[in-house]
Amino acid sequence: MPTEVYVAGVGMAKFGKSELTLPQLMVEAASRAIVNARVSGLDYVFIGVMSVEEFTGESNFAALIADRLGLPGIPSARVETASSTGSAVFESAFYAVASGYHRNVLVVAGEKMTHLPTAQTTKILAEVIERNERKYGASMPSLAAMITRRYQHNAGLSDERLQSVLGKVAIKNHYNGSLNPFAQFRKIITKEDYFGSRYISTPLRTYDCAPITDGAVAVVLTLDKKLIRVSGLGHATDTLAVRYRDSLTSFKSTRLAAWQAYNMARLSPKDISFAEVHDAFTAFEIIGTEDLGFFPHGEGWKAVEEGDTSIKGRLPINPSGGLKARGHPVGASGLAQIAEVALQLRGDMDPARQISGARIGLTQNIGGLANNNLVTILERTDRYRPIPVYWKPDYDPGDIKPREISQEVTTADSGTLETYTTLYTTPEGVPSPLTLGFVRIPDGRLIMARSRQENLQIGQPVKVEKEGDLFYMQPNPPPEKNADGAKNWLLRALSPAERKEDNR
Amino acid sequence: MPTEVYVAGVGMAKFGKSELTLPQLMVEAASRAIVNARVSGLDYVFIGVMSVEEFTGESNFAALIADRLGLPGIPSARVETASSTGSAVFESAFYAVASGYHRNVLVVAGEKMTHLPTAQTTKILAEVIERNERKYGASMPSLAAMITRRYQHNAGLSDERLQSVLGKVAIKNHYNGSLNPFAQFRKIITKEDYFGSRYISTPLRTYDCAPITDGAVAVVLTLDKKLIRVSGLGHATDTLAVRYRDSLTSFKSTRLAAWQAYNMARLSPKDISFAEVHDAFTAFEIIGTEDLGFFPHGEGWKAVEEGDTSIKGRLPINPSGGLKARGHPVGASGLAQIAEVALQLRGDMDPARQISGARIGLTQNIGGLANNNLVTILERTDRYRPIPVYWKPDYDPGDIKPREISQEVTTADSGTLETYTTLYTTPEGVPSPLTLGFVRIPDGRLIMARSRQENLQIGQPVKVEKEGDLFYMQPNPPPEKNADGAKNWLLRALSPAERKEDNR
Repeated sequence: MPTEVYVAGVGMAKFGKSELTLPQLMVEAASRAIVNARVSGLDYVFIGVMSVEEFTGESNFAALIADRLGLPGIPSARVETASSTGSAVFESAFYAVASGYHRNVLVVAGEKMTHLPTAQTTKILAEVIERNERKYGASMPSLAAMITRRYQHNAGLSDERLQSVLGKVAIKNHYNGSLNPFAQFRKIITKEDYFGSRYISTPLRTYDCAPITDGAVAVVLTLDKKLIRVSGLGHATDTLAVRYRDSLTSFKSTRLAAWQAYNMARLSPKDISFAEVHDAFTAFEIIGTEDLGFFPHGEGWKAVEEGDTSIKGRLPINPSGGLKARGHPVGASGLAQIAEVALQLRGDMDPARQISGARIGLTQNIGGLANNNLVTILERTDRYRPIPVYWKPDYDPGDIKPREISQEVTTADSGTLETYTTLYTTPEGVPSPLTLGFVRIPDGRLIMARSRQENLQIGQPVKVEKEGDLFYMQPNPPPEKNADGAKNWLLRALSPAERKEDNR
Repeated sequence: MPTEVYVAGVGMAKFGKSELTLPQLMVEAASRAIVNARVSGLDYVFIGVMSVEEFTGESNFAALIADRLGLPGIPSARVETASSTGSAVFESAFYAVASGYHRNVLVVAGEKMTHLPTAQTTKILAEVIERNERKYGASMPSLAAMITRRYQHNAGLSDERLQSVLGKVAIKNHYNGSLNPFAQFRKIITKEDYFGSRYISTPLRTYDCAPITDGAVAVVLTLDKKLIRVSGLGHATDTLAVRYRDSLTSFKSTRLAAWQAYNMARLSPKDISFAEVHDAFTAFEIIGTEDLGFFPHGEGWKAVEEGDTSIKGRLPINPSGGLKARGHPVGASGLAQIAEVALQLRGDMDPARQISGARIGLTQNIGGLANNNLVTILERTDRYRPIPVYWKPDYDPGDIKPREISQEVTTADSGTLETYTTLYTTPEGVPSPLTLGFVRIPDGRLIMARSRQENLQIGQPVKVEKEGDLFYMQPNPPPEKNADGAKNWLLRALSPAERKEDNR
């Protein structure tokens, strides 16, 4: 019988652009969590920070925070898994408590990002991307944009409908953020605001992307019985390179992590009252709700259209405002999701944003471009407990069988366009705008390629040429002069069979 | 009754200057450990790297290594505590197994450092130092040098005797390294080599400092009973700033970690057959053997003089060659210490370097300037088990009571010189040579100060002035012209009472 681990306390420092240093933010969050937890003494401090050396020029951060907390002597370690660091540090702290070697463990996660120029921040964040894809100038938004466009293609959504759906996610999360005193953005946005915002990487606009944020959050875990129990943990990686995945529109790392978390908790998706889902990009919230088993693959967007995921809907998603509106200090976001769930389950929220009767909450946190994801389930210990189940997904959650290392494609001359984007905010040192795509070459593999023209369509044949160490593509035959031609191409490309092909 | 955790397998990639990339080195070590472990399947991969983003320009390293191992899907997290990362990642993996949630866990630690210019590497490593001390241009060797000089003062050693003792540590560890096929340096060094090597930071020479190294090491931990058990773990931090410590010549972080590890293992220092001690600097090996309870404080140097710590001595220290000769890839060293202990306990070594009858081995690993240290004890499960003890150190191991954050000293005009050094290899952007010292001001606190002259003596009164945001000091009265005057000062400064004052 495994040892149970409970959430004793939660604390946050306001997310946003802050004048405080990262240690100050982390001490503020930790102090609140310690007061909130009312535990006698702490045995360990786990620290979650992502790229703290590059953002702040400080290393040895675990010792630094232990010192600033006025606790030099206490054991302290830093845990990091890129943008899922906040959940991963919670997971490691969970094991330290569950092992029986530590009774009360403090987890503090934070990041300080707003003080650097955007191009430099974008470059630091782009270091999570696989080296070959990064070489092309790919940033996180551009990879997310290509995934979004492929999702649109598979789901058979028109440009207008896609934008309307993504806008609804942004508007919902900003509304939720407006109710959250710790959120970076507390301003409601309208459809006009959404459509008025500029493209970061087509089809993703500013309001589709989580902002750059400073912030910190802390949680105290304990062996002593408390109201909130950690009932499920799941964690899985995926290939670093996006082009080596079986599917672009569903994340194996989420599916595997969810499966583990549900089975550890003996719960199924229908037992979840609400969830915090990693909406670094609006489309990722939709894909997340599908991979978590809440909605069938390719149909998550319908739940958004129907308002099911709003704070008063059937399954509230991101009641905190999500990464989108609460903000996304990269190392802290996962722990902020967990803190939100704990506070909602306790019933500690302002009535305007309290989810009534919430019994079980879930968080899903993405590391890198969905290659190190975690799912965490918390539940109240004083409520009706669903009958234990072993949840069997009705789709293949993927496997972790050892696989051959994929060999780099060195020559290619043709293929079909799998997806593409035009990126406007490029990493430091990369020209803007930049059009990138994934091309499926005749042997079935995907390669990344740059394009000198933006007028492209999914499914169209392309000619590929190598220039230096980069592939460049162009439509083959060259694009029709008629501007409407492109749209026709889209319709022709969307055969029903194709729409289903990489839904799993 | 806590769950027992065993070492199933060990693997190393040769330490030194390597043409391989860090992922290649880590995959090589991991592959060897997996083969060596003969476990069926792995449940988790823990990654230990220190400043990988700055050394290699890659982040998201946990996912990257899981991918390169051909195991995309497996959960993976990176753990980091500066130069004790190798032990800290082992500790977190231990908890993951001890919690009962994972049966077989792979731990891989590595670092790639030799490809950068030394000044840049020194700068990256100096980011572990507290900001105020770093501002003065302090590097790791210069802080270690000041600690060494204070140790010399307290122990009442002449310059010649100190150098002879430090040289013996270097010669011993190089001898041990010459027997270790995975060591960076496999060349015996002589007394002449030692005295012929240049000063990095007085009194520390090149041969007193661990080198810059590439390397990786891996260990598989398991719940299944194996020959080698993890019997003790201890972990403690200390103030980031060296000047806020009670003692310069003993590390509270080691004392606390050792006490925890001995008590978890129900062992005392006399049960230890041999140890790997963090000899990033030769003097740290001596201080380490004192803080671990092997020798009384201030007397560890005698054991070196008498040969007790040689590989065939009474208590072999660093049979692997230590950080000094095996090399010091910062994130990997702690795990390499653990690997050495496991292999020695198994009796898997070449007879020339096998410690016969070894039953229990210990590692001590320093993070930063001794502010995040770990002690790990492994033992054979098939041998006589000493009667369980609760070891009570005969000195104060220190405490972890919350303490006030020390306030920065902003004005000072005089004090006495606590210790000093002249640094020749300065961090990028700092003039060389640079003379630094700690000055005890009248209220009892220590400040760091630069000096424009090198001819200083511990215990002498100094005048302090602020220039910009740095303190500068000069002897008060000014030094005697006679070159021998300095030596006389040393003898006068060394009253027997003073020699004992900060031995604890």
